[in-house]
Amino acid sequence: MRLARIATPTGPRPVVQDGDVWAVVVDHHSPGLERTGETHPVDGARLLAPCEPRVVLGMAHNSGPADRLVPPQAFTKSARTVVGPGEPVRLDPAAGKVVVEGELAIVIARTARHLTPEQVPGVILGWTVGNDVTAYEQSALDDKFTQSKNGDGFTPLGPWIETDLAVAGVADLAIDVQVDGATQAEASTSGLAWDVVEQLVYLTSHLTLGPGDVVLTGSPGTSAHVVPGQTSAITIEGIGTLTNPIV
Amino acid sequence: MRLARIATPTGPRPVVQDGDVWAVVVDHHSPGLERTGETHPVDGARLLAPCEPRVVLGMAHNSGPADRLVPPQAFTKSARTVVGPGEPVRLDPAAGKVVVEGELAIVIARTARHLTPEQVPGVILGWTVGNDVTAYEQSALDDKFTQSKNGDGFTPLGPWIETDLAVAGVADLAIDVQVDGATQAEASTSGLAWDVVEQLVYLTSHLTLGPGDVVLTGSPGTSAHVVPGQTSAITIEGIGTLTNPIV
Repeated sequence: MRLARIATPTGPRPVVQDGDVWAVVVDHHSPGLERTGETHPVDGARLLAPCEPRVVLGMAHNSGPADRLVPPQAFTKSARTVVGPGEPVRLDPAAGKVVVEGELAIVIARTARHLTPEQVPGVILGWTVGNDVTAYEQSALDDKFTQSKNGDGFTPLGPWIETDLAVAGVADLAIDVQVDGATQAEASTSGLAWDVVEQLVYLTSHLTLGPGDVVLTGSPGTSAHVVPGQTSAITIEGIGTLTNPIV
Repeated sequence: MRLARIATPTGPRPVVQDGDVWAVVVDHHSPGLERTGETHPVDGARLLAPCEPRVVLGMAHNSGPADRLVPPQAFTKSARTVVGPGEPVRLDPAAGKVVVEGELAIVIARTARHLTPEQVPGVILGWTVGNDVTAYEQSALDDKFTQSKNGDGFTPLGPWIETDLAVAGVADLAIDVQVDGATQAEASTSGLAWDVVEQLVYLTSHLTLGPGDVVLTGSPGTSAHVVPGQTSAITIEGIGTLTNPIV
């Protein structure tokens, strides 16, 4: 099932895909996904970021087996960095060079704290494509990543939330990162050092997550340099493609 | 003028103090602070966190003159850590020892990016008391501060937003940190290495702030150890006192 948010003449709406229409729902987090009766054709609908996180977390150094030799670590991103499909990623020349990073993103369904591994599947609403845009020259100057991770439009999410993948089903999904139509990086979620269950057990041992929050699971070799005028397109197998202009 | 948010039988309300009543306003950020006509007596009103930030930033190592020898640095806190006066700060034994940190908190009025020093006063809605609760043994394990700064209730704010202090007026405000009624730390905002103007110029050179966002300006020697069962009370001259139980 695909959950999304779309723009309508009377404002944004949370929706679920029913065949060739987006059916408006009361709330992505309401039991049974109660439909309001309002529908919009899938063709031509403008998709927004599929959720409105209060908390956006990214996993640091989670790119390969060697990263299991050090403890997991995460950073928080400003919720104001979230944009949807087609919205611009704005580069600031003063921030230096920038990469896009294609990442599996977890969307949280409900309040989650001190999770056991067995509890993890129950708090996941679904999965979307995340782009953890990073001004990486700033990371060297600021170990807290505040300077590198929070530029305008630095967290594209979308195109929708896929709910039909189980936790086991995201263990080996292909991630393809294209810039202007040419593949710049190809990898798989199997390259992540700490898997989704381990990440949510770790993160919720330190803080509370809630409905709509997002965890960017890490970049297993899925980054690509970008400059203004280019377009990034990140595809994750079984989810979809997230496309954003770089300006 | 004091802006606050109060609990009412029909939900939270943004308010402004008019003598002995809290007058409900459409929005703290609406021009002219348009009143709805609804009022509540100041006596007995339950105060909530005075704003609902999407972004909470804290200044790192901003405690004295030596901190000017290294570049300014900041960390982001989960917006889910924000609580109001009287709400509990919840300690997790697994996180180790905890301090409360009494800090002047800036509340942002409007979208702010790439500010010049001259533009800073125009984006400040007002000031409140912030408590940047920190599980400091976690800071040594996690230089990103994700583990140390995001426990439940780790960002008490309140009791209200004082709008009558100019930027120059917050340069030397006394901060008093009490635990169970005994003063544990006394200092002044004059001890901050980077002042409010420098902070907002620095932060908005890297990211966008918006209405209701909060910057915790740093702890100039205003921290105190706490354990469950105690109560912290932080007073900033000209603003008020923020009291929270530690559980």
